[in-house]
Amino acid sequence: MAVKVYGPTYASPKRVLVLLIEKEIEFETVDVDIFKGVHKDPEFLKLQPFGTLPVIQDGDYTLYESRAIIRYYAEKYKHQGTDLLGKTIEERGLVEQWLEVEAQNFHPPIFNLVINVLFAPLLGAPSDPKVIQESDEKLGKVLDIYEERLSKTKYLAGDFFSLADLSHLAFGHYLVNQTGRGHLVRDRKHVSAWWDDISSRPSWKKVLQLYKYPV
Amino acid sequence: MAVKVYGPTYASPKRVLVLLIEKEIEFETVDVDIFKGVHKDPEFLKLQPFGTLPVIQDGDYTLYESRAIIRYYAEKYKHQGTDLLGKTIEERGLVEQWLEVEAQNFHPPIFNLVINVLFAPLLGAPSDPKVIQESDEKLGKVLDIYEERLSKTKYLAGDFFSLADLSHLAFGHYLVNQTGRGHLVRDRKHVSAWWDDISSRPSWKKVLQLYKYPV
Repeated sequence: MAVKVYGPTYASPKRVLVLLIEKEIEFETVDVDIFKGVHKDPEFLKLQPFGTLPVIQDGDYTLYESRAIIRYYAEKYKHQGTDLLGKTIEERGLVEQWLEVEAQNFHPPIFNLVINVLFAPLLGAPSDPKVIQESDEKLGKVLDIYEERLSKTKYLAGDFFSLADLSHLAFGHYLVNQTGRGHLVRDRKHVSAWWDDISSRPSWKKVLQLYKYPV
Repeated sequence: MAVKVYGPTYASPKRVLVLLIEKEIEFETVDVDIFKGVHKDPEFLKLQPFGTLPVIQDGDYTLYESRAIIRYYAEKYKHQGTDLLGKTIEERGLVEQWLEVEAQNFHPPIFNLVINVLFAPLLGAPSDPKVIQESDEKLGKVLDIYEERLSKTKYLAGDFFSLADLSHLAFGHYLVNQTGRGHLVRDRKHVSAWWDDISSRPSWKKVLQLYKYPV
């Protein structure tokens, strides 16, 4: 039975889609129009009480939070498709460390930029220039640390592509291509080469081809 | 060789300490005085380039980000001490889901409250009343969802104590005991019973007894 993924056009669900393609897992998608508020409907809240995307249904099993979903499938199908967890428990530890860095350090400023630079004007909502400035500064500092790390290892957790790198694709695309902030990546030699590497994977190209971003 | 844990008095490192006690893993601690800025010293930044706590050293292996560290040891010593990952891969998926909920939904508002209600006055810095109000509202909504969940299962991921519950202890202590917001827990019957259950575990009592919070 195919895995059902809710909300494929949005960024966080794309984290799940690219994982499923890397792991060669069959899936189908269900559109959720957050501009119409469908994610706050009682039916949707039964699946995901916080009213956020993505959610997956796999037979009777329902799971939400994109980084939980990618861990679940990476583990369940460890020996199918691309191995994304490292070969040893110590490598997995570093995958987890950099996945947390993505969630705690990279994601909040780029999420704020996407909201304030792209979504606010579209929705006629005000942008907050202070948040934009702080987010730009924070992202610059975070990417300085990435630059140092990626001068030593090809990928974040080591010399292997992992969940930690994959988790950057969905909002990295916004950073490089949609928010006018490509220079934050391009000005850093190793970050730039890493981005070209991970964003040219066939799995990611397929996601972009199948599911356009809403903005 | 004992695991070396940096910064035991602070909240996030306590997430690691309680895990190590549950897993019966020997450890020693290294004090880091963030009030003196030691976490921004070049020596410390070699261990943790983002300048945050905790970090662990285990022989030659260095790891940071508290939720990565607790996953690493829960997995490495799966059959020693308390099993905190669930019995099946589907249970582990739910542990990961609720661990992400803790990180993405519970942690940001309580962290903001700790900074604005406890640390700001201590450091002579201004508190932001808007942030305090928004954090209180957000926490209330999050705990409403916890109340619903805990009316059906004894713990967050199911009827077993897991990493997801354990991860709430360090900042839950601030919420209930230090920020004057115990009512957010006590007004919710199932959340209140859950908090009493998890915070009375011998492992957590031992952490509180050995390492006082700085505030």
